[in-house]
Amino acid sequence: MTIGIDLGGTNIAAGLVDETGNILCAIKRATDTHRGRDAIVADMCDMCMELVDEAQKRGLPRPGAVGVGVPCLVDKDMALVHKAANLGTGWDKVPLKRLMEDVTGLKVWIDNDGNLAGLAEHTVGALKGVDNGLLLTLGTGIGGGFILNGKLFRGTYGLAPEVGHMVIGKNFYDCNCGKNGCFETFASATGLIRYAEKQVREGMHPTSSLHRAADMGQLNAHTIFEAAKVADPLGVEAVDRLTTYLAVGIVNLINLIDPEVIALGGGVAHAGDFLLDQVKRKVSDNLFAKGFPTARFELARTGNDAGIIGAAMLGRMMKEAMTA
Amino acid sequence: MTIGIDLGGTNIAAGLVDETGNILCAIKRATDTHRGRDAIVADMCDMCMELVDEAQKRGLPRPGAVGVGVPCLVDKDMALVHKAANLGTGWDKVPLKRLMEDVTGLKVWIDNDGNLAGLAEHTVGALKGVDNGLLLTLGTGIGGGFILNGKLFRGTYGLAPEVGHMVIGKNFYDCNCGKNGCFETFASATGLIRYAEKQVREGMHPTSSLHRAADMGQLNAHTIFEAAKVADPLGVEAVDRLTTYLAVGIVNLINLIDPEVIALGGGVAHAGDFLLDQVKRKVSDNLFAKGFPTARFELARTGNDAGIIGAAMLGRMMKEAMTA
Repeated sequence: MTIGIDLGGTNIAAGLVDETGNILCAIKRATDTHRGRDAIVADMCDMCMELVDEAQKRGLPRPGAVGVGVPCLVDKDMALVHKAANLGTGWDKVPLKRLMEDVTGLKVWIDNDGNLAGLAEHTVGALKGVDNGLLLTLGTGIGGGFILNGKLFRGTYGLAPEVGHMVIGKNFYDCNCGKNGCFETFASATGLIRYAEKQVREGMHPTSSLHRAADMGQLNAHTIFEAAKVADPLGVEAVDRLTTYLAVGIVNLINLIDPEVIALGGGVAHAGDFLLDQVKRKVSDNLFAKGFPTARFELARTGNDAGIIGAAMLGRMMKEAMTA
Repeated sequence: MTIGIDLGGTNIAAGLVDETGNILCAIKRATDTHRGRDAIVADMCDMCMELVDEAQKRGLPRPGAVGVGVPCLVDKDMALVHKAANLGTGWDKVPLKRLMEDVTGLKVWIDNDGNLAGLAEHTVGALKGVDNGLLLTLGTGIGGGFILNGKLFRGTYGLAPEVGHMVIGKNFYDCNCGKNGCFETFASATGLIRYAEKQVREGMHPTSSLHRAADMGQLNAHTIFEAAKVADPLGVEAVDRLTTYLAVGIVNLINLIDPEVIALGGGVAHAGDFLLDQVKRKVSDNLFAKGFPTARFELARTGNDAGIIGAAMLGRMMKEAMTA
């Protein structure tokens, strides 16, 4: 039994997870980032103790470890949290592992949420049984988790993969990271919305239903994809641009890593086969190694549970490595 | 004792290599691609037999296996050669392993020359002892070899890494592969020369010594770097452009793979510290994970021997895996 915690900008979700990746019990609190770091850390510790009690009540084994997924960089020892822009202030070089271990008395390990979503997909989702597989989470930004040689790949210093910041071209706006042309500025929900907003602002496709959606403050990834599905010209153009650049980024990853499976998750992937069909065609047209077998595409399967499951799998894996 | 063969567009180089990566004896023949595939394969077999005889004459152990490096795609079984544009005609889906085994009676394995240069650096060069390291060969194109988790990484189907075809921007000419914006069109010797040629053609920097070099047919990577070193304006501009895009590609690789060492080889790397200093500065300015430890840079050390050494290490590694 392991506790998995998914610390997001909006909610903290935590759960008891068994060894096969089933969530047996889940709880949730609002992150309320304005409260500051200490209150958030205290809440996570509190939720751990609540889940320890819950395990006891249900006659389940006492949780042996805690995994925590965070939306930011984590050092190679899975101890230090860094650059957590979405969590408010006070998150620079925070020894989150030690802070939580001191309070809970449980062993705690931290990792980036993209990595943990990859681990969740490798345990129970679209990357199960896959030796080399990539998860791309297409949301506000683009996160990723790489499974290489059958294991989660974290790089030398724990910083891989920051796939959203791979530069693939020139864009009309700069990335939050300060560079121009990052993958996530083209192919995330944010990239899609920013482009549609620009086209609306410039009066393009005046018959498009998205002008009205923009007036009502409803220009989002869902409305843009729905517009594209009914051949609305601005919707079609915006989605076409997203899938073109998504394919550029994916072909780069195929050229570099040659994975067996690429799984797509996050809000943009809710568009399902409508997205996949375009991406598959554009990737296929641009492969370098034509005539060879190549990666197959899947939709991610763990959805909102990815964070809890992946975090618990990390805790379990590290605990086992320690006792081995 | 293993035989390593480096099949290039100009020469076939072969050598007897001991278990620590020392070349004990090397021989060379012109490739003469116009002769066609069969003559080239026959030459490689002939060179194997010559090296077997040479080992006997010198009282060395009989070579146990042959590795062959080729400038093209190789399948996952290290048997089939594909898309060898630089070797003339007749190189589509060639079962080179079987063809050479039938004639020589020796076990033969094939791999891409970028991978094998990476393996050579990992055995005796700049990536020795490194768990995650990348070799980039900056020559006519950009080749690469990735060492991940202490081993040569070939991907799922043997096609990784085609690092030269990572799209990083928009360029003024298309890549041979049919796409626009490939890393190698910016940061290879070819990319450097094409840009300088364009600037000469357009009459830019009329005082530059490179106009005269172009008239004399001497506009090459060496003359452009030498011009930059003495502050020739066109030389400076062309090298600045190369190092800017080289840094973009390298930062992408750091974001994705977070390697411990990046080794630079090939003709462009002959510029040595003059190149490295610019690249290090531009990479450092564009890192996503500032304040964390990051990859260090090295010049590749195996030079022209990389092909023979890497090929021999492949043969040795596969032979050991077979008998294990």
